[in-house]
Amino acid sequence: MSADPLPGWRETPAKQSIVEFVAAVTDPGSPDFVPERDRIAVFDNDGTLWTEQPVYAQLIFALDRAAELGHPTSLEELHAGGMAALIKLVALTHAGITTDEFDAACRNWLASARHPRFGRPYPATVYQPMLELLGLLDRSGFSCWIFSGGGTDFMRTWAGDVYGLPPHRVIGSVGETDFRVGDDGPELVKSATVQVMNDGPQKPSSIHRHVGQRPIVAAGNTDGDLAMLQWTVIDMAADWATIHPPAA
Amino acid sequence: MSADPLPGWRETPAKQSIVEFVAAVTDPGSPDFVPERDRIAVFDNDGTLWTEQPVYAQLIFALDRAAELGHPTSLEELHAGGMAALIKLVALTHAGITTDEFDAACRNWLASARHPRFGRPYPATVYQPMLELLGLLDRSGFSCWIFSGGGTDFMRTWAGDVYGLPPHRVIGSVGETDFRVGDDGPELVKSATVQVMNDGPQKPSSIHRHVGQRPIVAAGNTDGDLAMLQWTVIDMAADWATIHPPAA
Repeated sequence: MSADPLPGWRETPAKQSIVEFVAAVTDPGSPDFVPERDRIAVFDNDGTLWTEQPVYAQLIFALDRAAELGHPTSLEELHAGGMAALIKLVALTHAGITTDEFDAACRNWLASARHPRFGRPYPATVYQPMLELLGLLDRSGFSCWIFSGGGTDFMRTWAGDVYGLPPHRVIGSVGETDFRVGDDGPELVKSATVQVMNDGPQKPSSIHRHVGQRPIVAAGNTDGDLAMLQWTVIDMAADWATIHPPAA
Repeated sequence: MSADPLPGWRETPAKQSIVEFVAAVTDPGSPDFVPERDRIAVFDNDGTLWTEQPVYAQLIFALDRAAELGHPTSLEELHAGGMAALIKLVALTHAGITTDEFDAACRNWLASARHPRFGRPYPATVYQPMLELLGLLDRSGFSCWIFSGGGTDFMRTWAGDVYGLPPHRVIGSVGETDFRVGDDGPELVKSATVQVMNDGPQKPSSIHRHVGQRPIVAAGNTDGDLAMLQWTVIDMAADWATIHPPAA
């Protein structure tokens, strides 16, 4: 079946719904037709587009970088230390360097790091069915965006190539950056101050800020994606309240 | 001269530089060729693309809206009250309503408001030569973005149509928004907390966050645009330091 747009998907109602939905919104003769400029699709990343088990890849990056910087720690110590330990780790490994230096550090790590179960580079641990969905939507005139809890700068070092997305459509959590004119010219220095934790109810706010349009497709895999899914559904549902009554 | 890409520009070295630059970066045979995906151009708005005299349009919107809400104030009172008065005015006129309601309020205002000197709607007080420049860059494969001190939500109600830009490429100052599921479904409520004042050194940080690429063209008209211009020039200059020595 070479004409199957989603060959990696099993023949389920979910697959059928997706294919029918895409056909309807791209057919100018359909009552559900959506102009190309309004075909916005948003995706979570960790657990939705690539593996998040056994541990977030970015956390492994941070642990490896901490060791490289002479301050080794372990997952066990991190769990024991709670949020304070995590903030300290992020400050150590994600701040005090320029955006160019951080970009290079991520790329170096990605070149050698291997997923503990699959033994492959992390950017190879993406879900084939989701790549097919991204491709189907892209060919159907959608603009696909990532709204993830992962760090924007970290994701942009690999997600663009792997998912075929320009950097501006890869949005995650962000720390502040400080502009300065150094000896080598202007640069942005990453600070330890987290400006946006891009999870939960923050996701619709980030979508509003970065896209400025309500999506008509959203994909996520945890409760951290619920608000993003809710924010998307309303545009597709004639009567939202009958589908998802407001929480008390 | 129908072939003139910038007919509203006088024949000056500035115009010639722009035309030659665009020709060079779009010519695959040129040593200065830049692939289309890297042709990023960033523009300030107030005073660069449209008038900012005698008063920022958005400030007039705020004063008109304050009066409509039963809390009239004047420019004189605002000046006398300083930053505290301005913050109070912004909270009154830009917060506590949903993004959809704010969008409608802006559009209503724009439909009737007239520029005090020209007697025309504000979106008609844009600079013809700059519209031509946006058009030339767009036709030449550039992605043009706005990075302004004005409010993102306010600008997006008119800038898209006037400048031919999708909402995601219109970026300004932003307040936080709070997601909630109301009686009519999910909505975003604008809060009075300013998250980003998009001016000065913040502009390169915003460009990094929203675009994720260094621009190769930047246009601004005040010192609030200096950092954005510096952040852009480095990519075009073989030796930045000889052009703009670092400040002491």
